[in-house]
Amino acid sequence: MPFRFRPVDTTFYDLFAQLANHLVGGAELLAEMLSNGGDREGVAQRMRDAEHHADETTHEIVRRVNSTFVTPFDREDIYALASGLDDVMDHMEEAVDLVLLYGVHELPSELAHQVEVLQRAAELTAEAMPRLETMKNLDEYWIEINRLENSGDKSYRRILAKLFSGQYEALEVLKLKDVVDSLEAAIDAFETVANTVEQISVKES
Amino acid sequence: MPFRFRPVDTTFYDLFAQLANHLVGGAELLAEMLSNGGDREGVAQRMRDAEHHADETTHEIVRRVNSTFVTPFDREDIYALASGLDDVMDHMEEAVDLVLLYGVHELPSELAHQVEVLQRAAELTAEAMPRLETMKNLDEYWIEINRLENSGDKSYRRILAKLFSGQYEALEVLKLKDVVDSLEAAIDAFETVANTVEQISVKES
Amino acid sequence: MPFRFRPVDTTFYDLFAQLANHLVGGAELLAEMLSNGGDREGVAQRMRDAEHHADETTHEIVRRVNSTFVTPFDREDIYALASGLDDVMDHMEEAVDLVLLYGVHELPSELAHQVEVLQRAAELTAEAMPRLETMKNLDEYWIEINRLENSGDKSYRRILAKLFSGQYEALEVLKLKDVVDSLEAAIDAFETVANTVEQISVKES
Repeated sequence: MPFRFRPVDTTFYDLFAQLANHLVGGAELLAEMLSNGGDREGVAQRMRDAEHHADETTHEIVRRVNSTFVTPFDREDIYALASGLDDVMDHMEEAVDLVLLYGVHELPSELAHQVEVLQRAAELTAEAMPRLETMKNLDEYWIEINRLENSGDKSYRRILAKLFSGQYEALEVLKLKDVVDSLEAAIDAFETVANTVEQISVKES
Repeated sequence: MPFRFRPVDTTFYDLFAQLANHLVGGAELLAEMLSNGGDREGVAQRMRDAEHHADETTHEIVRRVNSTFVTPFDREDIYALASGLDDVMDHMEEAVDLVLLYGVHELPSELAHQVEVLQRAAELTAEAMPRLETMKNLDEYWIEINRLENSGDKSYRRILAKLFSGQYEALEVLKLKDVVDSLEAAIDAFETVANTVEQISVKES
Repeated sequence: MPFRFRPVDTTFYDLFAQLANHLVGGAELLAEMLSNGGDREGVAQRMRDAEHHADETTHEIVRRVNSTFVTPFDREDIYALASGLDDVMDHMEEAVDLVLLYGVHELPSELAHQVEVLQRAAELTAEAMPRLETMKNLDEYWIEINRLENSGDKSYRRILAKLFSGQYEALEVLKLKDVVDSLEAAIDAFETVANTVEQISVKES
């Protein structure tokens, strides 16, 4: 028996899928907060829970990387992917949190497009994670994320132009800009995740 | 003689302890600045000196990593730890600097808790650095830093809520938010240092 | 023939020089925007083109790293250098973009020094890139970049003090601070590039 088969720990894929699914939930909560009749306190509480679950999954991945001899791809890429997904959640949670903390009365309707981008990016990411096992059909995922990020960027700039157009008071601009920046950071973090997946895919192919 | 003993350079631990001690001094200067009777110009000058010393120690560590064949732990971890400690100092110096630069008249009393967190975190970090040599009793250090960071985060949010409550003018909010953000960034940087130590400890154990 | 000669791909140096030359063009566009008679829309369009070209060169470098067996220096350092240069361009483009987006009427004359620093740093970087091949005379480059960054930092602080002096309305401070922060981030990004070159040079020497 010259070759001993060493099984890779497939549950890494499950954990990444699980982490991405927390992001799907988080993006839905953002959409709920935007519908102005929503119960903001309730949304914020469920967002904190989602963020907590994402943290636990991230720690589970890190623990497993450190205790597993054979990993499905480079350790540093597993770290990068896990912490990238966790960053998305942190920015989404921050956005909800700031709305409550600052006592923002009315969110400009333009934010809806940013949140749609986040919902779509979360779904695409959750669908892509299981495909890490075969490394097949991942290019359509990262191409679409890049397209979404571009679209989100255009929204972001339109919102900034509106905020600084003179129709908002300086203090309100300050508040809204922090919220909008958090959403934009969440979208950018999805792109970072997609870049990491591309990097992994190029290495492994 | 089948095995040649290769001594590790123990002075890395001394340099890390020295760097952390600069942070203890920096946190004390922040506390001095908060006591409103303090000589702010004098504090700022001593803070610049402390930041300069920290820079020198950081460069000494980097130089030594590059010229030493055997390091006590991974080169990249030594870089991460040194630059993490240096980041703390940069944020503390920035906070003092902005107070003078912006001509902030009165610092809200709520900042005192952020500074207390920084003082405690600096002391704990300085005490932990020599323990890197044996890798013993480090878990209590990073657990406590994480607890402090959570506590600092709550203060930070309370301060933001106060800043945006309407009792401050927009320009004053802008000024104070930059100062408070620098203190918060310093606290976060202590957590990054603790995470690096945890990472090193897991790898080496 | 016990040793097979493996040629290194010299075109990496050409690509880095090309990328740095895009930055020289970008810095010139910033200077053009500052001269208040300038056609800002036209400048912004040419800046977007420059940014696009820089992106393409960066991707070309990354593609080549991934498909080349022997690289002139560590893969991770090539990534760091390429993405560092790309970051400079992103921040310069952002500055121009914000001026238009926010509808900034008049740019304080103090910005001229920041832009001069960027022009000089871009030229020095473009001149240094071909010297990566021999690793000779690179120290004068990074020493001068560090000196420029210090000088830029002093300007930055003078501008902030002016912005918060009370002569600007809060909303105008918000707008101008974002522009000035982008320029400062571009200068810092040049320093990060110089630090990467220093790091590479120390390793290879």
